[in-house]
Parts: sequence; C-alpha cells; structure tokens
Amino acid sequence: MVKESEIKKAFGNTLREFRKERKLSQEGLAENVGLHRTYISDIERGDRNISLINIIRICEELNIPASAFFSRMENGEKYYEGKSKLSQ
Amino acid sequence: MVKESEIKKAFGNTLREFRKERKLSQEGLAENVGLHRTYISDIERGDRNISLINIIRICEELNIPASAFFSRMENGEKYYEGKSKLSQ
Repeated sequence: MVKESEIKKAFGNTLREFRKERKLSQEGLAENVGLHRTYISDIERGDRNISLINIIRICEELNIPASAFFSRMENGEKYYEGKSKLSQ
Repeated sequence: MVKESEIKKAFGNTLREFRKERKLSQEGLAENVGLHRTYISDIERGDRNISLINIIRICEELNIPASAFFSRMENGEKYYEGKSKLSQ
C-alpha cells in the first residue's frame, strides 16, 4: 500500500509537469478551472487530497484524459518510489 | 465541461463494474479498503465526490492502476454521455 504522502506528491509532481509543458502559470490554471491559486500550489506540493471533480476539471483544462494523467503519474519513476505498487 | 453529476455517476458505474467482475461485495471491498459500506454504496450511486487517496486505495484493492480505471470510465459509452469531453 502506497503511503498517502507519496500519492499526493506523485499527483502534484505530475500536475506541475503537465502545467509547465502547457506554459500555464499556477494563477492561470487556477483561474481557468475556477480554483484559488494557493489550491493549485498546495496540490503541486502534495499538501492536499484533491477530489475527483477537481481532478477532472484540471485534466479538462490541461486537455488530457484523466487516464493519461494517471498513466504518467504511475510511470514517474523519478518522483515515485512506490511505482510498482501503483502501476501493478 | 462535463457536469459534476455525470462525472460522479461515470466513476460510480465504473467502480461497480470492476467490483462485480472481481466478485467483491460492497461490504467486502469497503472492509478491505478501510471504508464504510455506505461510502462505497454512495460512490457507486454517484452521490459522493471521492478523493484521490480513496481512488488509489480502491484501485489497489481492485488490483488495477488508476489509469486503467479512468480509461474504462472514459470509454464507458453506455454510462457516460460526456464521453467525448472526458476522453478528448
């Protein structure tokens, strides 16, 4: 079982990576999704347990299916020690 | 933008499908994941906005990566009107 903190960090690192690839600022992403900038910043730091609705809203804004987001998260070896458990 | 209720329903229907394939009861799944049975039942009905940690815990118990869960959810045409938006 992967630790909660690792799951949140892996999600946050994946979000930061996709966001930067799209040249979006935290402010810009937050505004487009209707969330506060500090919320995006907390998520990227692994400090929050994001909900399904916000996962989907963010993926819509990043223009990727959630499956592709999680696929990258599961394969993010450099971030995620528990890889073999998440992508079993 | 897909409606919140549709997202939650699509998630719940996908969960029910995977759970039944694994011949798990709502009680059995809930117990193994450390959640209450009514929580699983609420999720399957689309009545709750599940969190990242619980998504991953449930996928661990179902023995699938979250990416595969969402992939099926995105392709679940019979459940999900907003398919083209989620799996854009």
